[in-house]
Amino acid sequence: MRKIIIGIFGPGETATPSDRENAYNLGQLVARQDWILLTGGRKVGVMDAASRGAKSAGGLTIGILPGNDSDDVSDAVDLAIATGLGNARNSINALTARVVVACGMGLGTASEVALGLKNGKKVILLNSTQAAETFFLSLAPELISIAKDPESAIDLIKYILKQ
Amino acid sequence: MRKIIIGIFGPGETATPSDRENAYNLGQLVARQDWILLTGGRKVGVMDAASRGAKSAGGLTIGILPGNDSDDVSDAVDLAIATGLGNARNSINALTARVVVACGMGLGTASEVALGLKNGKKVILLNSTQAAETFFLSLAPELISIAKDPESAIDLIKYILKQ
Amino acid sequence: MRKIIIGIFGPGETATPSDRENAYNLGQLVARQDWILLTGGRKVGVMDAASRGAKSAGGLTIGILPGNDSDDVSDAVDLAIATGLGNARNSINALTARVVVACGMGLGTASEVALGLKNGKKVILLNSTQAAETFFLSLAPELISIAKDPESAIDLIKYILKQ
Amino acid sequence: MRKIIIGIFGPGETATPSDRENAYNLGQLVARQDWILLTGGRKVGVMDAASRGAKSAGGLTIGILPGNDSDDVSDAVDLAIATGLGNARNSINALTARVVVACGMGLGTASEVALGLKNGKKVILLNSTQAAETFFLSLAPELISIAKDPESAIDLIKYILKQ
Repeated sequence: MRKIIIGIFGPGETATPSDRENAYNLGQLVARQDWILLTGGRKVGVMDAASRGAKSAGGLTIGILPGNDSDDVSDAVDLAIATGLGNARNSINALTARVVVACGMGLGTASEVALGLKNGKKVILLNSTQAAETFFLSLAPELISIAKDPESAIDLIKYILKQ
Repeated sequence: MRKIIIGIFGPGETATPSDRENAYNLGQLVARQDWILLTGGRKVGVMDAASRGAKSAGGLTIGILPGNDSDDVSDAVDLAIATGLGNARNSINALTARVVVACGMGLGTASEVALGLKNGKKVILLNSTQAAETFFLSLAPELISIAKDPESAIDLIKYILKQ
Repeated sequence: MRKIIIGIFGPGETATPSDRENAYNLGQLVARQDWILLTGGRKVGVMDAASRGAKSAGGLTIGILPGNDSDDVSDAVDLAIATGLGNARNSINALTARVVVACGMGLGTASEVALGLKNGKKVILLNSTQAAETFFLSLAPELISIAKDPESAIDLIKYILKQ
Repeated sequence: MRKIIIGIFGPGETATPSDRENAYNLGQLVARQDWILLTGGRKVGVMDAASRGAKSAGGLTIGILPGNDSDDVSDAVDLAIATGLGNARNSINALTARVVVACGMGLGTASEVALGLKNGKKVILLNSTQAAETFFLSLAPELISIAKDPESAIDLIKYILKQ
């Protein structure tokens, strides 16, 4: 039976401690809802933290990797999808997630948010910047929500899934 | 913990009854080994039959879809990865599968076998044609095995995973 | 001999008259420098206007299309590259352009700017929004320039190519 | 005005002297017809030889590269399209070429032929193997032609373009 896949995207090497903490907590809460976690899969930053959070709650984790193999995969990824596409894999992330949560902000994350919105996905910004919120709200106000913490992000996802 | 992903690829609309029967049985046997099944995800041919087989044995199934959404997905796919890449997604199939099994033969399947071999993957041909066996053996004899039935394919996969 | 490829990216259906006029003029000026024009290739908005501008000055135009064929191609595209990748082709745009010019702003354009910056490309914003300028400057100040008109964009490109 | 793009695909590192000689001659003949040459763009094997042949006759050459930049590009490629997609770029090759010519045979070439045929493209095999001819004729007899030398391949392309 089709599973609900929630995407948590965010910075890799440039993630802040706060980005990683939010990502861990969010990953944990996603898993507790029996949703599947989708990330960019690498062993760094938000991808790694969210996946570890989900595993700490017994969840299932998918990583959509930029590389050809599983060299750079988070240990907390159960299902490593090796795309070999580099950053073009961000488009798959945006298409596959039922709801996109951007935790923190960076250039790759910005591309995932933009492509998600372009495909009509609801996007939740968590621990983002004022500049990012203003920019994305200017482009797609009806698709963007701002979450003040991981718990609120979960409430927003629940609301979106009911629509 | 990283799961073992086995790819079963084969014709869609042009699959023969024998291709579908082999795919169903093979999907079932893959699931019984606690391996994860990867297919091209569409609701037709070998992709659909293998996924239904795996679900009949309680397995977990991933579908790497050519389209942007889940319109054309097999009901037996648990995790629908919407790539939006068309047939370029065949490259992801070839990279993500730990072992590639081609069940039957067609043009898309041929591209997955060729790309799998190019990436150094072991490929098992099941219910293939003499022309396909001769061709792929001529290009990568050390990576190709011929299975006479689904049970033999499973034995070959077990042997490959031990290497 | 390797040609210099300049990418002009911008909104399609949602392009404003001012976006299209700037794109036409910029395409013309790019062609006069003997640079090759790269766009997203579709018969609409900035892609179409920039390509028509370049052709009006005898330039050569490449279109990196999202689709499988040339159904939706601008008549002013000489070389239609059919990717079949949907919006994942935006990553190719960002990688192939020696310099990226975003003319106007939209969701697809935002993804091209973000991916260009992520790959270390210099990006020039023309006819953009305050929100876009603030956002991208916050992420990669050393790679972003703001052009006040097409002529200034050309001067910026010349300066970048000399580095 | 839309240009006619002819794809010449074949082995890289494993190309035989005969593959490279045929590719060079074919590239030259393609350029003399004022067709644009498309290859995989790398500085090796059939891609490099065909591009050099086309340049020797004053033609224009496009290279669809697997990598992120132009590090590995043939010196004879005018327009380097950096896809960053690895072998998934073979799908773009197959979609963009108006006619596909496979010069020699290898695993990457096999994937381009298979994907070309899957997209309904006419494919010409030159300097191929008996096993390849038999295999692809078994899958798409109406789309495959066998050329005995580069001149015959050009005659076949002319015939196909008139259809």
